Amino acid sequence: MRVGIIGAGTVGAALIDLLSDTSRVDALIDAAGSRLELVAVAIRDTTRVRSHIPAHLLVDSAEKIASDPTIDVVVELMGGTSVAHELITTALQRGASVVTANKALLALSGTALSALARDNATDLFYEGAVGGGIPILRALRTSLAGERINRVMGIVNGTTNFILSKMTSEGSEYASVLSEAQSLGYAESDPTADVEGFDAAAKVTILSSLAFGTALDGSAIYREGITKIRLADVEFATRNGYVIKLLGISERVGASAISQRVHPAMVAKGHPLASVAGAFNAVFVEGASSGPLMWLGQGAGGAPTAAAVLGDVVAAARNKVTKRFDVPFSVDTTLGTFPMGELQSAFYITLNVIDRPGVLSAVTSVFGDHDVSIRSMEQSGFGDEAHLMFVTHIAFESDVSATLVDLAKLEVVEEIGSCIRLIGVDG
Amino acid sequence: MRVGIIGAGTVGAALIDLLSDTSRVDALIDAAGSRLELVAVAIRDTTRVRSHIPAHLLVDSAEKIASDPTIDVVVELMGGTSVAHELITTALQRGASVVTANKALLALSGTALSALARDNATDLFYEGAVGGGIPILRALRTSLAGERINRVMGIVNGTTNFILSKMTSEGSEYASVLSEAQSLGYAESDPTADVEGFDAAAKVTILSSLAFGTALDGSAIYREGITKIRLADVEFATRNGYVIKLLGISERVGASAISQRVHPAMVAKGHPLASVAGAFNAVFVEGASSGPLMWLGQGAGGAPTAAAVLGDVVAAARNKVTKRFDVPFSVDTTLGTFPMGELQSAFYITLNVIDRPGVLSAVTSVFGDHDVSIRSMEQSGFGDEAHLMFVTHIAFESDVSATLVDLAKLEVVEEIGSCIRLIGVDG
Repeated sequence: MRVGIIGAGTVGAALIDLLSDTSRVDALIDAAGSRLELVAVAIRDTTRVRSHIPAHLLVDSAEKIASDPTIDVVVELMGGTSVAHELITTALQRGASVVTANKALLALSGTALSALARDNATDLFYEGAVGGGIPILRALRTSLAGERINRVMGIVNGTTNFILSKMTSEGSEYASVLSEAQSLGYAESDPTADVEGFDAAAKVTILSSLAFGTALDGSAIYREGITKIRLADVEFATRNGYVIKLLGISERVGASAISQRVHPAMVAKGHPLASVAGAFNAVFVEGASSGPLMWLGQGAGGAPTAAAVLGDVVAAARNKVTKRFDVPFSVDTTLGTFPMGELQSAFYITLNVIDRPGVLSAVTSVFGDHDVSIRSMEQSGFGDEAHLMFVTHIAFESDVSATLVDLAKLEVVEEIGSCIRLIGVDG
Repeated sequence: MRVGIIGAGTVGAALIDLLSDTSRVDALIDAAGSRLELVAVAIRDTTRVRSHIPAHLLVDSAEKIASDPTIDVVVELMGGTSVAHELITTALQRGASVVTANKALLALSGTALSALARDNATDLFYEGAVGGGIPILRALRTSLAGERINRVMGIVNGTTNFILSKMTSEGSEYASVLSEAQSLGYAESDPTADVEGFDAAAKVTILSSLAFGTALDGSAIYREGITKIRLADVEFATRNGYVIKLLGISERVGASAISQRVHPAMVAKGHPLASVAGAFNAVFVEGASSGPLMWLGQGAGGAPTAAAVLGDVVAAARNKVTKRFDVPFSVDTTLGTFPMGELQSAFYITLNVIDRPGVLSAVTSVFGDHDVSIRSMEQSGFGDEAHLMFVTHIAFESDVSATLVDLAKLEVVEEIGSCIRLIGVDG
């Protein structure tokens, strides 16, 4: 089996090391049913010294690898959505198997590319695109293929989990932890894709397609990031037995609708996701028969992601040897998108108010007007600095949104602070 | 694809429900590549009313299902090692795929049965044998097939995890929690297989074969149960940031040896396994590239185990449709068994001593004589009731064993209490 790799960044370099490890050759032959021979690595600038890549493997044209009829498995690790899309299309059209970790491309064009793979009787695998080294996608494709899945809920962005974990353990505000994460290399200098939830949204879209047969359509997802989380929220969570996590969720609601969303949540400490700290990722799956299942592992990094990519290369090679291919997810056209406003949840809501007689009555009557029932209230500070923290009973999203709009109109409310959904021990 | 089930206990009944669920028919056809048709269920006593099994499916002879050439996938859920072995042999020899959850049989004869499946170009799958609904075995076979695994460490027995969790949360002694577990149905009236670690040992043997290629030989495994764990040990663990778990471990030691063992361990609270409570199971895998990975789920129960069995039936059917089979693990004959005495660990050791001048010096000099260095010591009680709790630095098993032998000879030592290995946050 001849393998070509497009792109030799962190993941590509780690994959080259794995494929070049002589102590693993026999194990890989056992697993793949054939020797995996790395025959070409395409990089942008072949004049740069790459001590770990044998010079005779280097080619300067990714197109050569995509279109070379002797290459059985094409591994796309260059990133980006435009050129990568062309290369993958070229490779699939000629019947090559394609392995990629390009979550942005998949969230955008995964439905069409998967169909293209099926039409050409070949495989498009992308285990490395979600959860780094965690082998969750193949489990959804295979072990859970017969299972009715009701919910997939994941901590799928390591940067935000690192930031939220540090805010909790060190008692620091968001901005200072973000700076620390940036200086440590855990966050990009422009952290938008991570902290605003775009990265998590792409991953949820991929998980959802395999769990439910939703189309890979990144625009269908509701999204909130973590930039508005305050230390006071983290401290409230700790005091009350919760941990704040950025969750990506896709779930069945009612008979024929799916809700996909990314937002911070206060997760009860007894929930398995609550103990997933630092740069770990985890995906929690609720199956009708299997009950709760969770996968945990390192969500990023060259070696873990390369391990996931290698698993795909092995599977693709084995399929080529036995002349079969895995059927990709098929889009279930009967499924609709559940309206966000009709979802129900308990909420944590904070307000800065002017502390004067009658303020609490004015505030709580707004909640009542919208049928949002209050479970608990805490106050800190006084005078102009009074800070109210509410936890509601289960309420409709639309009612809570309307409550916030009307609260903002009150003269005594200086600022709406946070509004964070709660996840109990049992979901 | 025609499916026959032998045995309709809890798991069998749940599997029949899943295969009979009309709302899942299309999903199962998608997943298996063919309709899964349940054609026969063998039960011991066909006169007993089974409202959930259509009468025309019932047969009174398991042998009929094993040998019926029209049945493609034989599901063995009767348990036991003798008759089940014969039936599985019959089915594999005629080229049927076999799905079983019979861990005891696999630990005893899995190597030969797997070879028989391979020789007949068919599949023997047994996802339900380890971790109930957790799809860990297929992950080891597929996603991690290219990965160099260094260690597999699991909480694979729900009964003991329930008991240890209750001892921790309720502050109760072993005997009273065991009674409670028995009355709740979480423990058998004869709990030996669970509490002495036999069940966990069979599961570790299976995990080890897929992770490392060790032969399925249940006798190769070192085994200690939880019956000697005292409330005082649990309380010590809680005070010092540990949780006591019954762990099944298989790991590479040195270049060409594997250590397989089942024993209680004090697991540091930051370790992902520490938060696996109650009847949950979890398997923690350390891969050279992937880093730490963990799978968590319900380790027992009809529906979760049936979900795992169904995943196997789907995979076996798909292989039959595409006329291929998964290559089972092959035994790596270069691997030896690492001698238990040469393993190294930190230990928690307790002694009941007569509290008189010089006793501590006598006791600690025995540790020193065997090069076992003490990290910390606590004393509770006094006079005849003095209880010493030591934590050692990393030491050889053989040195600790020799220390315990010599300690028992001291006149001031009334009883050797517990001896429990420690697992840190990083293993």
